[in-house]
Amino acid sequence: MDDHAVGSHRHLSRRSLIATGALAAGALGASAPTLGTAFGGSPARAAAGVTRKVTLYAEQLPGGLFGYGLAPGQATVPGPVLEMYEGDTLEITLVNTTNQRLSIHPHGVDYSTDSDGSPFNASFNDPGETRTYVWRSHEMVAAAGRRYMPGSAGYWHYHDHAMGTDHGTGGVAKGLYGALVVRRRGDILPSKQFTVVFNDMMINNKMAPDTPMFEANLGDRVEWIAIGHGGTFHTFHLHAHRWADNRTGMLEGPADPSLVIDNKDLNPGSSFGFQVLAGEGVGPGAWMYHCHVQFHSDGGMAGIFLVRNADGSMPPGAEEAIHRFQGHTHTHGS
Amino acid sequence: MDDHAVGSHRHLSRRSLIATGALAAGALGASAPTLGTAFGGSPARAAAGVTRKVTLYAEQLPGGLFGYGLAPGQATVPGPVLEMYEGDTLEITLVNTTNQRLSIHPHGVDYSTDSDGSPFNASFNDPGETRTYVWRSHEMVAAAGRRYMPGSAGYWHYHDHAMGTDHGTGGVAKGLYGALVVRRRGDILPSKQFTVVFNDMMINNKMAPDTPMFEANLGDRVEWIAIGHGGTFHTFHLHAHRWADNRTGMLEGPADPSLVIDNKDLNPGSSFGFQVLAGEGVGPGAWMYHCHVQFHSDGGMAGIFLVRNADGSMPPGAEEAIHRFQGHTHTHGS
Amino acid sequence: MDDHAVGSHRHLSRRSLIATGALAAGALGASAPTLGTAFGGSPARAAAGVTRKVTLYAEQLPGGLFGYGLAPGQATVPGPVLEMYEGDTLEITLVNTTNQRLSIHPHGVDYSTDSDGSPFNASFNDPGETRTYVWRSHEMVAAAGRRYMPGSAGYWHYHDHAMGTDHGTGGVAKGLYGALVVRRRGDILPSKQFTVVFNDMMINNKMAPDTPMFEANLGDRVEWIAIGHGGTFHTFHLHAHRWADNRTGMLEGPADPSLVIDNKDLNPGSSFGFQVLAGEGVGPGAWMYHCHVQFHSDGGMAGIFLVRNADGSMPPGAEEAIHRFQGHTHTHGS
Repeated sequence: MDDHAVGSHRHLSRRSLIATGALAAGALGASAPTLGTAFGGSPARAAAGVTRKVTLYAEQLPGGLFGYGLAPGQATVPGPVLEMYEGDTLEITLVNTTNQRLSIHPHGVDYSTDSDGSPFNASFNDPGETRTYVWRSHEMVAAAGRRYMPGSAGYWHYHDHAMGTDHGTGGVAKGLYGALVVRRRGDILPSKQFTVVFNDMMINNKMAPDTPMFEANLGDRVEWIAIGHGGTFHTFHLHAHRWADNRTGMLEGPADPSLVIDNKDLNPGSSFGFQVLAGEGVGPGAWMYHCHVQFHSDGGMAGIFLVRNADGSMPPGAEEAIHRFQGHTHTHGS
Repeated sequence: MDDHAVGSHRHLSRRSLIATGALAAGALGASAPTLGTAFGGSPARAAAGVTRKVTLYAEQLPGGLFGYGLAPGQATVPGPVLEMYEGDTLEITLVNTTNQRLSIHPHGVDYSTDSDGSPFNASFNDPGETRTYVWRSHEMVAAAGRRYMPGSAGYWHYHDHAMGTDHGTGGVAKGLYGALVVRRRGDILPSKQFTVVFNDMMINNKMAPDTPMFEANLGDRVEWIAIGHGGTFHTFHLHAHRWADNRTGMLEGPADPSLVIDNKDLNPGSSFGFQVLAGEGVGPGAWMYHCHVQFHSDGGMAGIFLVRNADGSMPPGAEEAIHRFQGHTHTHGS
Repeated sequence: MDDHAVGSHRHLSRRSLIATGALAAGALGASAPTLGTAFGGSPARAAAGVTRKVTLYAEQLPGGLFGYGLAPGQATVPGPVLEMYEGDTLEITLVNTTNQRLSIHPHGVDYSTDSDGSPFNASFNDPGETRTYVWRSHEMVAAAGRRYMPGSAGYWHYHDHAMGTDHGTGGVAKGLYGALVVRRRGDILPSKQFTVVFNDMMINNKMAPDTPMFEANLGDRVEWIAIGHGGTFHTFHLHAHRWADNRTGMLEGPADPSLVIDNKDLNPGSSFGFQVLAGEGVGPGAWMYHCHVQFHSDGGMAGIFLVRNADGSMPPGAEEAIHRFQGHTHTHGS
């Protein structure tokens, strides 16, 4: 089980926290993180945001994969979760340690054409090249009447846009992707984060039973970031949990009209995120997440969300479920 | 025509009403049903909800189909509409009258692993076995700031998760599915309900001209529950009517930002619902609903929403349209 | 470049404005257009709306295409943008100059069965025939509690429903489609409009590098209307800009819970629209829009959104990007 869990825990590595700051003060349910302290300084942080510098290493991995990592030799598929608050800037220095042309292209944030990450705008890293990409963000801006042009907050993602084709089809297929979270000030912070990428017929470039097993304890506030890639269409389903189909996954009050769902289209280039309290109202156990397209789940697009007891111990039946999952073939007849 | 209408009327059978209570006091447009009376008792009903027991019979049907029904010999495709209010509990005793392994798995509601309906959690009925599944529900819960963790209200569905494969691919393909509606107190109740399931290249496991003809009188408040299943992607389109793409299909007031649509992705595992006033602003007539993927509608994924005059008589042109529909082949050239 | 721009500019032709009125007083950011003046008359306009008559000509075009146009010989693919305010009526007289059966079927608005545009309702133009279709619209109507039945406002579309098959598969494939915008009073008007139709593996029935290049100056309020057609599934992505996934694409205030996105499913029969300020926060340049399904963008479903400097001059790097786009083959290896 431990090796299933590695993928998810890496997203919360100390390097990731330092790089982005967003989770540094993230106690469960805290609604007003004091980022100033976390970054050793300014007691009052300007709404204009701060600028952080991150170095990402694009590396070749075993099995024909490629990944992004926050230090040499630490590339993963998916790459680290990058976070910022609306108003912040991220300066990404991308070190291309491979022999392939590649880049990093973000969704949701602001960038000039030279940080577009596309060969179309001559924005990519040649083999061995180091290049800096700048991602800015902003809060909503009043338009007219009660309307606002939207800010940058959202559950976004980043990916290669240059390997194999001018759209990065080769890089995306091989694992060059990750989550990008832009928060609004006051957003509730999670205690755990899971990145789930439906990429053609795989989840995080793996198939069952090797897909990630995400773990939490009963009641943990868990953030799911779901991303679609490749050339195939999918629907993401999580057993026994649900979320509002809006920016945060939570309702903004009793008059919030949002749909509440537990199954959502997850198609190439799209992403969404939400928080759940692990096992809320249903109890601990081994819960499935999977693509709900029947032949996709049968074919291996399924994984486990293991909700342990509040003290971290295994709930009854969970071991058996995991063994069943690891043993079965996900084909007809079971 | 009568035999087309049967499918929809069954959803409103007395057994269904008793089982769930939600429609028992459902006058058109009523916004505060008094369920207490309907269940012979408590004048003031606790928000904590009530518990109802339902027995469902899974049966083999002619033509290789399987269905769920509320009494022996009454299984249908789709199964009966099950309803509850947020806070209610449904105890479903599933009688498996078939020689296949099968189960019932709900979306949207709360259940322990032993009511998951999945072989993964050893939650299914062996051939001939009877087993009880418990579905709970809850209202939204305050999180922090103005945010709430969402409650269970929604247009959900239930389906087999054990026949053929561990994901129920065989059972779903053969008709083991139905609608599950969880309402919030104060929701406006419909006078009619239609369940439309896009399941691979079929609607309710039928193709035109055998697809259901749904009937209402001009002005009836009609609730559509749309569900996607199988391995194919679709878009649901209804002629001459529209709805808000939110929880109820209605706007929560002039500032509700929801999209208003008449065409929506309807993909495996997803569901949505909405209410329309039959023929509102457009008049009576035979209106089409269909998948808007061109070769799907040409191939038979289309049906009729017959809006009769307010007195129930046939509007001009409707008979001719129905005859045209029944006669044409839905292939090129017409 | 000029010939790339033609398609978009036609949407703002004088005829289109006269036909619909919506843009007649459309200064950038104006939130309360005075349509009365534009139509030479009534100083105070009744909320009930006005009736406009439009003649559309369905014509055969070179290359096996068909189009709708506002005058003989002016048919385009897509057809002209038609606009109305909630409450308005459009009387469309469709002149069929071709030797094919065809029609016009709208989404979102109100019409009687004889304006359905479907052979099912005997509503179509035979070859050479002229026929009038009436589209009405209405504002939201109070239902019960705080709820309203939705009005007609939205980014809709119209298309043939009779050529080739009873669902218009042939007409849609060959270009018989266009945008229909229904606004709510007080909506912010754009200064430019672009219609983007993902129709099977093409954009506006073209493939890169012949797809439309949409042009604006830095800061222009640009309205995108995205429409899906055919039998293939897509996701629309726009570089460096984003929008709220709601009716207007803007937030209705800080409590608006809408998702903010830059990638959205765009599937047959669906449509959405949004406004952006060209280059806001990112600067001028040649930005890509494309289907994010990797083999679709590689195969030619990509185009350019050229944001010029505020004075209309070309920004650095844009010419080179356009040349790259026109020269490259959008296949593997670049």
